[in-house]
Amino acid sequence: MTEDHAVAPDSGFSRRTFATAAGAATVATALTGPAAAALPAPAAPVQSHGADFDRCLAVARALLVLDSDNHPLVPRYQHVLRDGLPAQRRARPKNVLVVGAGPAGLVTAWLLKRAGHHVTVLEANGNRAGGRIKTFRKGGHEHGEQPFADPRQYAEAGAMRIPGSHSLVMELIDRFGLKKRPFHYVDIDHEGHPANHTWIHVNGIRMRRADYARAPRRINRSFGVPRAYWDTPAAAIVRSVLDPVRDEFSYLGRDGKRIDKPLNERLQGWARVVQRFGDWSMFRFLTEHARLDERTIDLIGTVENLTSRLPLSFIHSFIGSSLISPDTPFYELEGGTAVLPDALLERVRREVRFDRRVTRIEYHDPEHPSSDTEHVRSRGPHVWVETVSEGRDGPVVREHFSADVAVITVPFAGLRHVRIDPPMSYTKRRAVCELHYDSATKVLLEFSRRWWEFDEADWKRELHAIDPGLYDAYRTGRAVADGSLLGAHPSVPGGYITDDQRTHYAANRSVARDQPEAVHVVGGGSVSDNANRFMFHPSHPVPNSAGGVVLASYSWADDARRWDAVDDEARYPYALCGLQEVYGQRVEVFYTGAGRTQSWARDPYAFGEASVLLPGQHTELLPSIPTHEGPLHFAGDHTSVKPAWIEGAVESAVRASLEVHTA
Amino acid sequence: MTEDHAVAPDSGFSRRTFATAAGAATVATALTGPAAAALPAPAAPVQSHGADFDRCLAVARALLVLDSDNHPLVPRYQHVLRDGLPAQRRARPKNVLVVGAGPAGLVTAWLLKRAGHHVTVLEANGNRAGGRIKTFRKGGHEHGEQPFADPRQYAEAGAMRIPGSHSLVMELIDRFGLKKRPFHYVDIDHEGHPANHTWIHVNGIRMRRADYARAPRRINRSFGVPRAYWDTPAAAIVRSVLDPVRDEFSYLGRDGKRIDKPLNERLQGWARVVQRFGDWSMFRFLTEHARLDERTIDLIGTVENLTSRLPLSFIHSFIGSSLISPDTPFYELEGGTAVLPDALLERVRREVRFDRRVTRIEYHDPEHPSSDTEHVRSRGPHVWVETVSEGRDGPVVREHFSADVAVITVPFAGLRHVRIDPPMSYTKRRAVCELHYDSATKVLLEFSRRWWEFDEADWKRELHAIDPGLYDAYRTGRAVADGSLLGAHPSVPGGYITDDQRTHYAANRSVARDQPEAVHVVGGGSVSDNANRFMFHPSHPVPNSAGGVVLASYSWADDARRWDAVDDEARYPYALCGLQEVYGQRVEVFYTGAGRTQSWARDPYAFGEASVLLPGQHTELLPSIPTHEGPLHFAGDHTSVKPAWIEGAVESAVRASLEVHTA
Repeated sequence: MTEDHAVAPDSGFSRRTFATAAGAATVATALTGPAAAALPAPAAPVQSHGADFDRCLAVARALLVLDSDNHPLVPRYQHVLRDGLPAQRRARPKNVLVVGAGPAGLVTAWLLKRAGHHVTVLEANGNRAGGRIKTFRKGGHEHGEQPFADPRQYAEAGAMRIPGSHSLVMELIDRFGLKKRPFHYVDIDHEGHPANHTWIHVNGIRMRRADYARAPRRINRSFGVPRAYWDTPAAAIVRSVLDPVRDEFSYLGRDGKRIDKPLNERLQGWARVVQRFGDWSMFRFLTEHARLDERTIDLIGTVENLTSRLPLSFIHSFIGSSLISPDTPFYELEGGTAVLPDALLERVRREVRFDRRVTRIEYHDPEHPSSDTEHVRSRGPHVWVETVSEGRDGPVVREHFSADVAVITVPFAGLRHVRIDPPMSYTKRRAVCELHYDSATKVLLEFSRRWWEFDEADWKRELHAIDPGLYDAYRTGRAVADGSLLGAHPSVPGGYITDDQRTHYAANRSVARDQPEAVHVVGGGSVSDNANRFMFHPSHPVPNSAGGVVLASYSWADDARRWDAVDDEARYPYALCGLQEVYGQRVEVFYTGAGRTQSWARDPYAFGEASVLLPGQHTELLPSIPTHEGPLHFAGDHTSVKPAWIEGAVESAVRASLEVHTA
Repeated sequence: MTEDHAVAPDSGFSRRTFATAAGAATVATALTGPAAAALPAPAAPVQSHGADFDRCLAVARALLVLDSDNHPLVPRYQHVLRDGLPAQRRARPKNVLVVGAGPAGLVTAWLLKRAGHHVTVLEANGNRAGGRIKTFRKGGHEHGEQPFADPRQYAEAGAMRIPGSHSLVMELIDRFGLKKRPFHYVDIDHEGHPANHTWIHVNGIRMRRADYARAPRRINRSFGVPRAYWDTPAAAIVRSVLDPVRDEFSYLGRDGKRIDKPLNERLQGWARVVQRFGDWSMFRFLTEHARLDERTIDLIGTVENLTSRLPLSFIHSFIGSSLISPDTPFYELEGGTAVLPDALLERVRREVRFDRRVTRIEYHDPEHPSSDTEHVRSRGPHVWVETVSEGRDGPVVREHFSADVAVITVPFAGLRHVRIDPPMSYTKRRAVCELHYDSATKVLLEFSRRWWEFDEADWKRELHAIDPGLYDAYRTGRAVADGSLLGAHPSVPGGYITDDQRTHYAANRSVARDQPEAVHVVGGGSVSDNANRFMFHPSHPVPNSAGGVVLASYSWADDARRWDAVDDEARYPYALCGLQEVYGQRVEVFYTGAGRTQSWARDPYAFGEASVLLPGQHTELLPSIPTHEGPLHFAGDHTSVKPAWIEGAVESAVRASLEVHTA
């Protein structure tokens, strides 16, 4: 780093950065202060929006999964998953409705059923459980049909990698005997060593990640970053602006790895971060606190995937990059992530009612009887739920359910359309209205060979099998680009590529003299500033298949929304051409013509990828999201501080199950 | 206003509010300073994100539609629309490709054709011009079929009201002899006087707007706003926090109306506002500058439609609420807004090629020849465009076009998927990647009678025609709610309401003892905190029809996204029930079973409602959006500072036509 590097020093917030950022109503004092008690009241005497420290502590507790006495809950939750809910003196089993058969609903149902309660799970989807765990596989997704040309192939529409540090999911995987294996977030070479050979493709430059890490100047200058950043890789710039904030709850060890402070210090530190930056967007943090110029923000935003979420909560992105350490191994499940909901469903199959979308919920809170409720009574059911079927194969069916309590696990974006009577508490209603849900969109393309694992000799051999001159034609960017070479390799089964597809690909074709060499990796993925943004290769082959499904485009927020406006069928030619820009035109010969795409923001069961909070929502909305409303309890990843992660869903399910069981 | 009202005084930014907001890298000094020259450099010596004053002046100029010498462009543009492009000495006509047949593309084509150029307009849509001007009418939208039960009925999917102050659109309307009439944004009574009798329906309270304006306490307290705001209507709170900012470019006259300062002062004032708040979100402005508490933000956000756009640019919302004065009359076009593109299309019908979606653009910039371009030459065509058809009624067709210049009018969100070779300038590419596009979603429901114009006597008469006891049953909230009364009035034509619809409506029904009295208005609309959010009644009857189409739900940003995840067909029962919550259950008897819905964020021709910028994008991206890239020129509302308004599209079309014509 050079002298005019604008980032605060590692030892916390410098006086200068603090001074320049003062004035926010939420600012306490220097964040390096030892404890919450030392923090003064906000400077201005006016009514301020800023969150008080108790709320920030509550958020920090939820984030670290501590109870109100600051004891870790995860070991207790693991115990529940292993041995069941604790025995209760008052043993009367309850009738429980669980709304939603995603991981939170399934775990809740399974735990409550094991404890002897009578459970019914209501799932809107006519034929699939699992929620945002969704594997495109033969017979395993909504549309039933075989998703890819090779019936053995499968790929993830949703959750695809599980951090090893997510203890509750690991507990479930072990308990159910599911087979996990490494998910290579970073590509490895054919000997199994981390390679970082995948591409960074930005501003017309294509460079392997390892080369960029060694010599970032060419790419950095293509963004026009100031000289001070010419030689700093994007990841290091991000680390240098976030590490001073991390100093609140962890410190840098001698080996360069961050070490957590003791629990209470960590809690207080996180609470200070929430108080200091809870109202901030990532954009504001990078411009005002880190004082980065717009070009450096373009650089790190493009390469490190911050751009599309710049207007969203700083805290959200910061948590994501801080709670999972860079050393954490990721896992995937053999057969697809859906084997986890499969295992859960096996245990509660008779309890799940598919094809039942909840439309209305009435409830009676015996502790707060309301004169507005039609069903004022202290005994008998306290929750009445109305549902409709999808009516796919016949008339729409309406069905009523009642129970003692309900556990509502569906996303609040979907709950917005459910009439709930009497109205819930003010803050819960605001959360249902306002909690921000993000877009995430995937486009998956199937290939008959795992070309990303090829070296140039492999390419030469395989292209020669099509036409002796083809290898050289592709290498020099002179192969025909009229769509006739699409799926030209003999390994591609007939019947998938239509004339219309060829026309579309030809019209969208990416042709350039500059054709890259073989990427030659296993797993991992590339990044581009084209619309595809992030690309991932499968970490493992599917048994008995020489092919594979590439995640040709994975994008979030505004990046994803540009795909969400495009009809499903129109996405595949765009995605293939974007992939060709990064990996070269020749990959087209293995394309089978089969693809799948998932827009979570357009999904009528999910209503978004996950809750990704807006500035201020952590303190304003989050604390009231998991609290029960009389007999209505709430679970789901959005009720945790790990939205989008299975761990958050499981954690919430154990919490809600304990609430219901011990109430 | 009471003493602890936290808003800065009207005379500009107080020292205190300024001091509390200092520290932002973009802050100059007190905004009341006389001129740009007096503004010091940013306080800190580091590279700062903040926009320099020249960029802010450029934004202000675009916003006030001034040329670089600060002369107003609108009169000149009006002249062009009236009399055509100015005669050129060098008279060689150009071959021009116009991409997109929305209002910007059509006006561009019309002007250039009149001036003797050879124009071809490429439109992706197979059978409709007009872009986001789209009227659901018989034969007039993509799907062709009759949209409502009554073939005479029509309703707007997009643009529905035109401010009288939008001089360029007014010029077009007059020139084409289109019939305009008032659009009643505020409801009127049957004598034609402003009534404000529509509903505010929030937190379970339903109150007429006029009553709320007189006595806001009950609703304000339902949000838990501090005592200081108990008696201030939401609109007045918004005005009180925005007016100090408006003091930069206008002042309060004796009659209470705001008066513009002289042009140069206005320009400087707007530039200071852009510099001061260009990086701010509306959320940050309300919390930190206006120092509003979260409950007051909930109140004004809900009633005055700020909530869903809180994370977006303050400047965007502020411009919208400042450039159109509250006295501005709104107009609509007889027959639907689509009569405007109809009139334009009539003049360029032979020039428009429907069913041609642009997939690739290659260009050669004779001033900056690039070795990367395949077509390096100084004479002949400079732009090559490739297109595909939709292939609705046959195979997909691919067609090439070439020209001297192109005018690209499609939204940047859509341009993201078009391969452009050679790459455009850095800032243009960033704008194509990052320019934020918003969601806006409408759900329209048809009724066989204009029940919103009814008084109680009308209701009694019409319900009596169904069943003598029905009026009283509805009034007391005891009418059956099993769907059997849907469309029960004899005026509802048979054949639209299916058994499945009845089941859906029953399952989603809104029933309550509290049933409102007749709203009894013409035009205008209501607001609710339910998912419908904003509802509008037609301002005028459709000739020879006793019915009407209600805009049952109009929502933006996050409010709209909750609808965007719902399949079209599933939206109508939700929208009807939300409407019933506001207007009473009985409206169901007139529902014809026909509805239409439009999600602009899901529209494969529009890619969003409009560009609604993020904090910082006005200064970072906007100045480079309209600039040409060699022979590629850009028009469309997103190239103006009036996104989403037809005026912005027309203004950009005249500007781009002048560029092409005089180049």
